[in-house]
Amino acid sequence: MTSTSAIDLTALLAPGLPPPAVRWTGFAKYNFVGGHNDPSFVPVDSLIEASTTVLRREGQTLATYGLNSGPLGYRPLRDFLAAKLKGHAGISCSSDDILITSGSLQAMDLVNGVFLARGDTVLIEQETYGGALTRLARLGVNAVGIPLDQEGLRMDALESALSEHKRRGVRPKFIYTIPTVQNPTGTIMGAERRAQLLRLSRAHGVPIFEDECYSDLIWSGERPPALYAMAQGQGVVHIGSFSKSVAPALRVGYIVAGWDILSRILALKTDAGSGALEQMVLAEFCRAHFAAHVPTLARGLRAKLETLMEALREQFGTAAEFDDPKGGIFLWVKLPDTVDTLKLAQAALAAGVALNPGPEWSTDKAYSRCRLRLCYANLEPAAIREGVATLAEVCRREFGVPSRIANVAHPQGR
Amino acid sequence: MTSTSAIDLTALLAPGLPPPAVRWTGFAKYNFVGGHNDPSFVPVDSLIEASTTVLRREGQTLATYGLNSGPLGYRPLRDFLAAKLKGHAGISCSSDDILITSGSLQAMDLVNGVFLARGDTVLIEQETYGGALTRLARLGVNAVGIPLDQEGLRMDALESALSEHKRRGVRPKFIYTIPTVQNPTGTIMGAERRAQLLRLSRAHGVPIFEDECYSDLIWSGERPPALYAMAQGQGVVHIGSFSKSVAPALRVGYIVAGWDILSRILALKTDAGSGALEQMVLAEFCRAHFAAHVPTLARGLRAKLETLMEALREQFGTAAEFDDPKGGIFLWVKLPDTVDTLKLAQAALAAGVALNPGPEWSTDKAYSRCRLRLCYANLEPAAIREGVATLAEVCRREFGVPSRIANVAHPQGR
Repeated sequence: MTSTSAIDLTALLAPGLPPPAVRWTGFAKYNFVGGHNDPSFVPVDSLIEASTTVLRREGQTLATYGLNSGPLGYRPLRDFLAAKLKGHAGISCSSDDILITSGSLQAMDLVNGVFLARGDTVLIEQETYGGALTRLARLGVNAVGIPLDQEGLRMDALESALSEHKRRGVRPKFIYTIPTVQNPTGTIMGAERRAQLLRLSRAHGVPIFEDECYSDLIWSGERPPALYAMAQGQGVVHIGSFSKSVAPALRVGYIVAGWDILSRILALKTDAGSGALEQMVLAEFCRAHFAAHVPTLARGLRAKLETLMEALREQFGTAAEFDDPKGGIFLWVKLPDTVDTLKLAQAALAAGVALNPGPEWSTDKAYSRCRLRLCYANLEPAAIREGVATLAEVCRREFGVPSRIANVAHPQGR
Repeated sequence: MTSTSAIDLTALLAPGLPPPAVRWTGFAKYNFVGGHNDPSFVPVDSLIEASTTVLRREGQTLATYGLNSGPLGYRPLRDFLAAKLKGHAGISCSSDDILITSGSLQAMDLVNGVFLARGDTVLIEQETYGGALTRLARLGVNAVGIPLDQEGLRMDALESALSEHKRRGVRPKFIYTIPTVQNPTGTIMGAERRAQLLRLSRAHGVPIFEDECYSDLIWSGERPPALYAMAQGQGVVHIGSFSKSVAPALRVGYIVAGWDILSRILALKTDAGSGALEQMVLAEFCRAHFAAHVPTLARGLRAKLETLMEALREQFGTAAEFDDPKGGIFLWVKLPDTVDTLKLAQAALAAGVALNPGPEWSTDKAYSRCRLRLCYANLEPAAIREGVATLAEVCRREFGVPSRIANVAHPQGR
């Protein structure tokens, strides 16, 4: 023994780790980030009832990893999902084609895990979920953004990108898309474009990774069939979640795929199963209440979205441009080109307003520089209005936009 | 477009994936694998009460990722753990030194994730948790087994290995140990040996990864302080679980580490939090019932262990050798050298008996060839007896061991 001094653990860390986390100090007062939901719509009474019923009936099965359902997850929840996906998204699948995951983020990690190696290329929507971008970057994967329009992925741009990659001898591993309530733009891809997308996917031998995390929350309640449905499950892997439709802190998502792929995904899921109590309570709740709960929640969210859009018009006038999203929990906003939302986000946070700056949600940093995402589900209507007013103040101070204070220069904003 | 034929997704898979999973067809009739627990000791009534109380009080917080507790996990559960670890394991830590994980397997993945890169070396107990071995193999890490005795890791062997690696210029990333109810041998490392281990760790600058998944289940209720406690948290990362003490299907584990390491671990935990309902219900349950529940469970498990050991003596006589474990849910058994437990496991499974063959739980395939692990918590006493009788039959048929049938040749077995 040569020394008894303490070991410097940090000298032993693996190379290439992300920067250390910073201490959490609570949510921002006006919290427009994070995909949280509306607390008043958490179905607390029904969850208590579901939890009591299911624990009374089969609580003892908690003594067994995977309950009595095996590694794909709690069978009654998969049965519910198979029926729901059939009715909602047109997907014909059995409970054995569904793997329950610990949230859709584990689903995403698993799908990435079976397809991607360092140096691979994937095609993704130019504006997309920030966590998808950070994951691909960490995996050393080249994420090529395809521009969007008001119906989602632009087919001309996708076709060009596919052809260009083919010319260069690069076969992208998949096309990652959120076709039904796109994050962050809130668009829904129509059935015709979905068919085009599937034709392109097949012609180039590049499968589709379809993420339907937000697809339950659609104002009209109507939607085209899932890509997985239209393709009869061929060449498509589908994921979804209960985070937006029931509660985000319940970490329950799922993957739908043929067994050729699902068996490879399952082999990577070495976590001894996802949380069983959450699956049991969800299954029991959903069987009785999901169909009625979701439209109620959607109406509540729509009302909050109206509040947000009204507040933006009031405070920013024509300086804030946005399309009315078809559903979801977020609004994608364009400010004048002079605004740098990365800087705005820092200044706003200091004033208690948290927002997602565009460049964190896009592969095109120049295009997204003046754009931002606002999640509106978690805040009370009054807080939405106050938060937007505060944001407008900060933005005017930092960038001179909007040029005058609310309700004076922009009567058209009402 | 050149083709509309289906895409062969399997041609796009990443290299180096594990073999595909096989369809689950249910548990073996005599299921001595998997670390399941005793269904009759799942505290169903108390879990219902806890779930009702906590959902009534704060169910609405499920609308927020991480509840109101931030990314380290539900604060009341961390508060409970800080107090429990102090009383039980002598660990002085605050709730901010604890990260709640989705089972201790996520904890293990995260600790591995911050320290290990392909080509690294770690020192581990020669007989150890099979999932630790498969993880290290998949990470491309060289796992060097250190022989055990009846107090766990042998210090002479560890010192030799450390010196030998130093000579070769290789600094192992950590020493992975299960000091308190070792898996699979069931030993507890004494306080004096723990002090030796810490001295060796410091002298060689190789930290300790302490896994205490089974440490709640000790027949005597007494144990030495955790290595983390004795080291005042310096150079040690500690993990644990509620799987063995409450229920394995609840996927709740934890990591205790200083912020220099925990902040790096937290940065790798990109799952938007572990399941909140499980954390909430556990915290509510544990505050009121954990202290009384664990000794009751331990008494029940000890009785089952007696049944198993009695059945082995009855059926195998002196052909089955084992030490009486100090706690836990498994027994490590040596059969005569002629028995190949990998083959035995296959033949036994065909007869309805599932067991862990030694080589899957050891780095020394020759030493462990005639050894096996039997988990006894999940089976009823009658099934334990039947399962062992079936195993003896199969073993006699395949290997001529035990040489005669029960209760005839081995009266000393009673």
